[in-house]
Amino acid sequence: MCGIVGIIGTKNVSHEIYRALLTLQHRGQDAAGMLTFDGEEPHLKRGLGLVNEVFDEESLKELDGPVGIGHVRYPTVGSTSALDAQPFLTYLPYGIGLAHNGNILNFDEIKRLLSKKYKRKLRSTCDGEELLKLLAAELGSTFDLENVYNSIENLMDVVNGSYSVVALMTNEGLLGFRDPHAIRPMIFGEKKSGKGYIFASESVVLDVLGYRVIKDLEPGEAIFIDKKLKVHSKAIKSDKRKHCFFEWIYFSRADSVIEDISVYEARLNLGKELAKLWKGKVDMVMPVPDTSIPAAISFSEETGLKYREGLIKNRYIGRTFIMASQKKRIGAVRDKINPMIREIRDKKLVMIDDSIVRGTTSRRMVEMLRKAGADEIHLLSTCPPLRNPCVYGIDFPTKEELVASDKEVEDIRNIIGCDSLIYQTLEGMVKAIGIPRENLCTACLTGNYPTKIGENDIEKFEKMRKKERSRK
Amino acid sequence: MCGIVGIIGTKNVSHEIYRALLTLQHRGQDAAGMLTFDGEEPHLKRGLGLVNEVFDEESLKELDGPVGIGHVRYPTVGSTSALDAQPFLTYLPYGIGLAHNGNILNFDEIKRLLSKKYKRKLRSTCDGEELLKLLAAELGSTFDLENVYNSIENLMDVVNGSYSVVALMTNEGLLGFRDPHAIRPMIFGEKKSGKGYIFASESVVLDVLGYRVIKDLEPGEAIFIDKKLKVHSKAIKSDKRKHCFFEWIYFSRADSVIEDISVYEARLNLGKELAKLWKGKVDMVMPVPDTSIPAAISFSEETGLKYREGLIKNRYIGRTFIMASQKKRIGAVRDKINPMIREIRDKKLVMIDDSIVRGTTSRRMVEMLRKAGADEIHLLSTCPPLRNPCVYGIDFPTKEELVASDKEVEDIRNIIGCDSLIYQTLEGMVKAIGIPRENLCTACLTGNYPTKIGENDIEKFEKMRKKERSRK
Amino acid sequence: MCGIVGIIGTKNVSHEIYRALLTLQHRGQDAAGMLTFDGEEPHLKRGLGLVNEVFDEESLKELDGPVGIGHVRYPTVGSTSALDAQPFLTYLPYGIGLAHNGNILNFDEIKRLLSKKYKRKLRSTCDGEELLKLLAAELGSTFDLENVYNSIENLMDVVNGSYSVVALMTNEGLLGFRDPHAIRPMIFGEKKSGKGYIFASESVVLDVLGYRVIKDLEPGEAIFIDKKLKVHSKAIKSDKRKHCFFEWIYFSRADSVIEDISVYEARLNLGKELAKLWKGKVDMVMPVPDTSIPAAISFSEETGLKYREGLIKNRYIGRTFIMASQKKRIGAVRDKINPMIREIRDKKLVMIDDSIVRGTTSRRMVEMLRKAGADEIHLLSTCPPLRNPCVYGIDFPTKEELVASDKEVEDIRNIIGCDSLIYQTLEGMVKAIGIPRENLCTACLTGNYPTKIGENDIEKFEKMRKKERSRK
Amino acid sequence: MCGIVGIIGTKNVSHEIYRALLTLQHRGQDAAGMLTFDGEEPHLKRGLGLVNEVFDEESLKELDGPVGIGHVRYPTVGSTSALDAQPFLTYLPYGIGLAHNGNILNFDEIKRLLSKKYKRKLRSTCDGEELLKLLAAELGSTFDLENVYNSIENLMDVVNGSYSVVALMTNEGLLGFRDPHAIRPMIFGEKKSGKGYIFASESVVLDVLGYRVIKDLEPGEAIFIDKKLKVHSKAIKSDKRKHCFFEWIYFSRADSVIEDISVYEARLNLGKELAKLWKGKVDMVMPVPDTSIPAAISFSEETGLKYREGLIKNRYIGRTFIMASQKKRIGAVRDKINPMIREIRDKKLVMIDDSIVRGTTSRRMVEMLRKAGADEIHLLSTCPPLRNPCVYGIDFPTKEELVASDKEVEDIRNIIGCDSLIYQTLEGMVKAIGIPRENLCTACLTGNYPTKIGENDIEKFEKMRKKERSRK
Repeated sequence: MCGIVGIIGTKNVSHEIYRALLTLQHRGQDAAGMLTFDGEEPHLKRGLGLVNEVFDEESLKELDGPVGIGHVRYPTVGSTSALDAQPFLTYLPYGIGLAHNGNILNFDEIKRLLSKKYKRKLRSTCDGEELLKLLAAELGSTFDLENVYNSIENLMDVVNGSYSVVALMTNEGLLGFRDPHAIRPMIFGEKKSGKGYIFASESVVLDVLGYRVIKDLEPGEAIFIDKKLKVHSKAIKSDKRKHCFFEWIYFSRADSVIEDISVYEARLNLGKELAKLWKGKVDMVMPVPDTSIPAAISFSEETGLKYREGLIKNRYIGRTFIMASQKKRIGAVRDKINPMIREIRDKKLVMIDDSIVRGTTSRRMVEMLRKAGADEIHLLSTCPPLRNPCVYGIDFPTKEELVASDKEVEDIRNIIGCDSLIYQTLEGMVKAIGIPRENLCTACLTGNYPTKIGENDIEKFEKMRKKERSRK
Repeated sequence: MCGIVGIIGTKNVSHEIYRALLTLQHRGQDAAGMLTFDGEEPHLKRGLGLVNEVFDEESLKELDGPVGIGHVRYPTVGSTSALDAQPFLTYLPYGIGLAHNGNILNFDEIKRLLSKKYKRKLRSTCDGEELLKLLAAELGSTFDLENVYNSIENLMDVVNGSYSVVALMTNEGLLGFRDPHAIRPMIFGEKKSGKGYIFASESVVLDVLGYRVIKDLEPGEAIFIDKKLKVHSKAIKSDKRKHCFFEWIYFSRADSVIEDISVYEARLNLGKELAKLWKGKVDMVMPVPDTSIPAAISFSEETGLKYREGLIKNRYIGRTFIMASQKKRIGAVRDKINPMIREIRDKKLVMIDDSIVRGTTSRRMVEMLRKAGADEIHLLSTCPPLRNPCVYGIDFPTKEELVASDKEVEDIRNIIGCDSLIYQTLEGMVKAIGIPRENLCTACLTGNYPTKIGENDIEKFEKMRKKERSRK
Repeated sequence: MCGIVGIIGTKNVSHEIYRALLTLQHRGQDAAGMLTFDGEEPHLKRGLGLVNEVFDEESLKELDGPVGIGHVRYPTVGSTSALDAQPFLTYLPYGIGLAHNGNILNFDEIKRLLSKKYKRKLRSTCDGEELLKLLAAELGSTFDLENVYNSIENLMDVVNGSYSVVALMTNEGLLGFRDPHAIRPMIFGEKKSGKGYIFASESVVLDVLGYRVIKDLEPGEAIFIDKKLKVHSKAIKSDKRKHCFFEWIYFSRADSVIEDISVYEARLNLGKELAKLWKGKVDMVMPVPDTSIPAAISFSEETGLKYREGLIKNRYIGRTFIMASQKKRIGAVRDKINPMIREIRDKKLVMIDDSIVRGTTSRRMVEMLRKAGADEIHLLSTCPPLRNPCVYGIDFPTKEELVASDKEVEDIRNIIGCDSLIYQTLEGMVKAIGIPRENLCTACLTGNYPTKIGENDIEKFEKMRKKERSRK
Repeated sequence: MCGIVGIIGTKNVSHEIYRALLTLQHRGQDAAGMLTFDGEEPHLKRGLGLVNEVFDEESLKELDGPVGIGHVRYPTVGSTSALDAQPFLTYLPYGIGLAHNGNILNFDEIKRLLSKKYKRKLRSTCDGEELLKLLAAELGSTFDLENVYNSIENLMDVVNGSYSVVALMTNEGLLGFRDPHAIRPMIFGEKKSGKGYIFASESVVLDVLGYRVIKDLEPGEAIFIDKKLKVHSKAIKSDKRKHCFFEWIYFSRADSVIEDISVYEARLNLGKELAKLWKGKVDMVMPVPDTSIPAAISFSEETGLKYREGLIKNRYIGRTFIMASQKKRIGAVRDKINPMIREIRDKKLVMIDDSIVRGTTSRRMVEMLRKAGADEIHLLSTCPPLRNPCVYGIDFPTKEELVASDKEVEDIRNIIGCDSLIYQTLEGMVKAIGIPRENLCTACLTGNYPTKIGENDIEKFEKMRKKERSRK
């Protein structure tokens, strides 16, 4: 749950990267950072907070240069300090900077490897720094593309996890690569007017900045654009595609196209699939804003039910999902979502939500709607039951906190307090997205993790996550 | 274009006022402030920025007390400095604090009056300070309610403009009053559980905090809650009701109920009225997010057209309307609204917007939609043509900047570049809101200002506004 | 160990108060504050740090007004937070502000009295707030001078301790008063050119700002200057004079005149008195900079010994005495005082210090001088042995930390490591200052405290002080 | 007028560099900076203000590493922004950092050379960055000592001016070198306990940190300590010694030893030389604190006149000399130096000052002393008349502002308003310092500049300086 961008070719990239990060702000509001090279020196600025809090006109001027990368963070590993923010920069063997989206499972193992084999220490607890130093470890003292490819191969050999990476190789060029399963998204494009290339987490960045999509990077593919803007690419090490399905369900912006599938259309389809499961009789259908709006619209079209906004969101408070602790999450619900009393009083209603994680937000909303006078509340989730933690970069809670991890639907309905509860089926979800089931990572639904997971690895991972959370 | 709140009775009001201000954040993102009395001393905190930037846990603790007022600002008069932020506080004749929503037309005249008759100077250029010192001017050295009523009457006699006011009278109690035309909104309520009273700009604050609506204040009415929580009220000086119709069109939150009219329903009705004016044949209807969503929904229901989101808003950037300068406004559009290319390509579409001010945002959006491949674009405005400046607190641009001030619809259509342009009629708008036309201030549409306006007053007002803007 | 100032009459006092605080900076570097009245409203600014860190041109402009008070703090009671900084301001019964220098022994007792009898709470742990609320407690709702005098009398009846106070009585005038023993200094003066009056901790402020000395306030005297600049004064409640002798030894600036005794001359005399006690044969005399310089000069004149600077102070680091913890004190010595190696190598020398508190600084300096090659080091203290804690505002350590509290001179010499150690006699010190012994508070030397001290009061006081220190 | 330090060998140098900068604080209070290498990465922190304002425990922790350099700045070329603060760091051809003390006369010429020959741009207006990029320009892509020496030689060939330089060569080691005339000071030392080396502007740093002096660097000498702590040195390019005599007069700390001459002893000698020129009859001799204290002491010894402190300095305000503008300088005098009225009233006195620059401070002090009642004031300057601007790093004013540039002594006496005025002779000054006249740069006295100065170079230099000042 981070957003990345890399741009080369524009005379001064800092404003474009700034706008790209604004466009990716939904992927992380915790910290933002930018690294550019101006032909002689690197310029790095990182800070806690929103993109427009971290950067201003002056800092963008200081960051001017013909190549750069940027990052917005929601921390999956690492503390909430500005020193842990990406991008990272090293001087050894020469100036290299890196930012990534994903999560490394064998962080400690790689850390030991770096220390023992390469005599390199980490100053942060961020896996971005680890990837950078691992990439740098096998490079020679002068830039050489083959050498870079070999370093990436070495990295792919030892790293277990998901990673979409943008990297600056001093003034030599801009590099992007994606893990062999292509779990997290990354798209590559070229400027419509004039020369220039871009890597970004989502296609919407290309739309906003005026770039044409070339392609989503292949599993294990590396693309390098040199300083003369020549594009080089190599399939380093590919494995079976395992795209994270949750990008379409919730995480990506509706106006992005991921792996050539429109997020908006996928969400309309999710509503259509849900409509097939619905047999009841109610007065209206309403979304939990904002992600489930398209599903509610298409549900309304399929069923003929009136579409209404029954809950109004305070636009000036961030996403619930992004909140740090359970306690804060409940407190925040009151202030950020308010029921439209006159629309729902004495009404029977279908409420569509994108997914149910802990169930606490759903319960809170059902309570609010009942207090506001709703007669019947039927909750439909566009996502099948979430039963397992994500170890590839989505900040789900631990298994025991996932309400569906060990409960039947009727028990969950009881906890949430709604009149009925309907989950999307796995088949419906796969059909709605339109990518073969075997090419989606559905570990959080099924427990089948695409990378090697040892017997106690999930437990260990969850312990670490709990520790991190308690630190905050 | 400000939001106000006043609370008395709760043991510690600072958290409630904070949440109220979060809820009113859409009414002003420029500055926020809070003033409380703790039984002995006043505590005041004001700052530039969003509510959650100005306050934190520590400052809320320091602001604890049984009575307080709060304010969010979008400046209509006064510079963008924290010293000009409301509430204001005076020590003479005893501790009084005040915050208001509205605009004073005869600011300079009142300033001279204060100086000559009462020997009181202003330290800011904010009309809130002026109202405070005018209110304080006729008070005796000890608190007396009749005396307070007389001071308000004196104030209403000399002030020309709109003002909804909350004021703290040392530890004696909480005061609210509204100008004789009741131009700007203010609602009064009582706590559902336990004792306590609230004034707020919008009813949604009462919903969120658990208060029951008692009433919208009458024109020229003052309500005072003393420290024993006894409610006193007096009709000080009333005139014909002239509620600002633009609160329903755009300014208030959809989940508020203003003068007993649901904002959401009014907007649904605006869509229905528009549907009556539409004869064309297109593929879909889409709103300009977010204000015009209900109008688009009801338009879709009335016409049978498919409802789709054709433009996606970046939730992390503020409202266009609130931007400081024309130039910034254009730049910002690109980053904050993105067309949903796959939905609109090769489509004929109706786009519903709440209102057309300068026309520049509409032109930009039409351009974006055309570039994204839209075949036909028909723009429908839920608000009739805006032809005159607002002098009562809505930050419209000057007359010459209002695109409809001197142009026919066809000329405007041409400027915007859409295939057709349809404005709501005045009758349709009045019918949709459901309040008699004579009780709405429609000065910005018709030029009939409800308070005394001299021959050159509008020109003078606009000059001052331009000067303010150039200072920023 | 604080400095205070109050000024009335000058059109805009903020610049004068600022310069006064700069001049009193040696009395406290922990925090600074200023309160002014502008004829309508009070303006208060307080902050942690040096005077020039707390104020700037802009804040001085906002503080403009015809009357004001100021304070620099070294905390004796109260934490190191800006909220605990003086001056304090209350609104009840009307606007009053206060700052003081001194220490209240029965702080808890007064706090209970305020709460029970007057229903007033403290928000800080600072005795300045306590004095303010106690002063305000007996005042009527409108200003009346007799009433003020009565309030001061009431205050003097119940407060046990030392206090030199400046207070603003809304826009009515400026008040100064001193405790019945006149323990801490305060001087009163009038402007040389034009009308205006001043209170200050030291006469040097009057010199710098162009004021003529009128008098040191008498024990228990109150002086009030009304807004027409008429001076009123009253002997409220006087007791035996007990001026703190340590002001001449160390605390006041050399260019001040306290109780008509020049601090510089007193220090020259201290050196002369020490010379009478010296029989040895050495190469030179050197001061521990800066306080003991005049004593070393006169010692040189009396004995014919060469005067040299053997230790050079880093002018950019604050006074040792002012440091928070023992540990920091040792660390700081190395960086702030450096031996002049070429002057002292192989030399026998007399080193004169103003006083010996813990003995650790002396030991450190003796070590430094020995390492730098000094042959013999004879330490002479201008102050007799400090054996008891100060409860009246000098931040001495606890009794057990005072090296002389339970040790003979030879033992102390041994700890410090010098070749000989000579203390000023009590008689010599009294003669040097030139005020009758009975009119000096010498509690820290003799244990005779001028105000009522119960059996366990010193112990209790020291416990509290330790607790405070551990908090820091 | 800057201070520099470089340390290698200590495990963590940041605390030592911090203490070194505190010790050199008198050489510049405008900005401070530190650069360290931790074995993998460089860490750089720079900021405006005093050393203890720029650094704290946390930043020192982040700066830990086995080698580093530091700088305190008073700007001679360059604006007062943190981006212009030293040290500077480059990535090309590998990580190098540099800080210097001095001034480059042909800044623009070198800038053009860098741009044309080496394609390197400056981001600041600071000559430190210029020296760094010039040094880096001829280096190969991997570290090689001979190569470094060659780069220094290249630098010495083209740079006209004074420069004492410390530089970090990535993790390879620490470099120091001095211009061929050795105009500005730099000393080299080794740790007393354990291994480690240091470069510093003044010997007092070595005393404070526990280092033993090895030597002052020779003109044009470079010393390099490699990562195994082996010392290499080379005489790159030497010319006639031309040490700045003003270091002994005013600039260095009294407890430093420059070119094996004790600054304190030189100042005592300056007083002795002045005594030879004095024939009058007065009551006492007094210094202008602090620099001229030793001269006044020895003057007192030679003449038998009483030594007294007639002016007391406020220790909490910085040095007059360092102030930005003439106007501020006058204002500041009042607050920072106060006459000791009781010592000087009705007295005839000799006042010794280190030097007379504009004459305005002297005039102010003479006025103050007269107002304080002095009967006769005889001003003696330990420095001969300053007639020409310094182009090698001392921030003297322009020629026309130097009071002695075009006036006879009697005219200057008249301007200053003293009863008599005596300047040190050139011979007396040279004798007091004890270095052959031909080995001192006395350009500011004589106009003989040791480096090549074209006909209009001084004028051009002064124009630039005026421009810089007006910008501030």
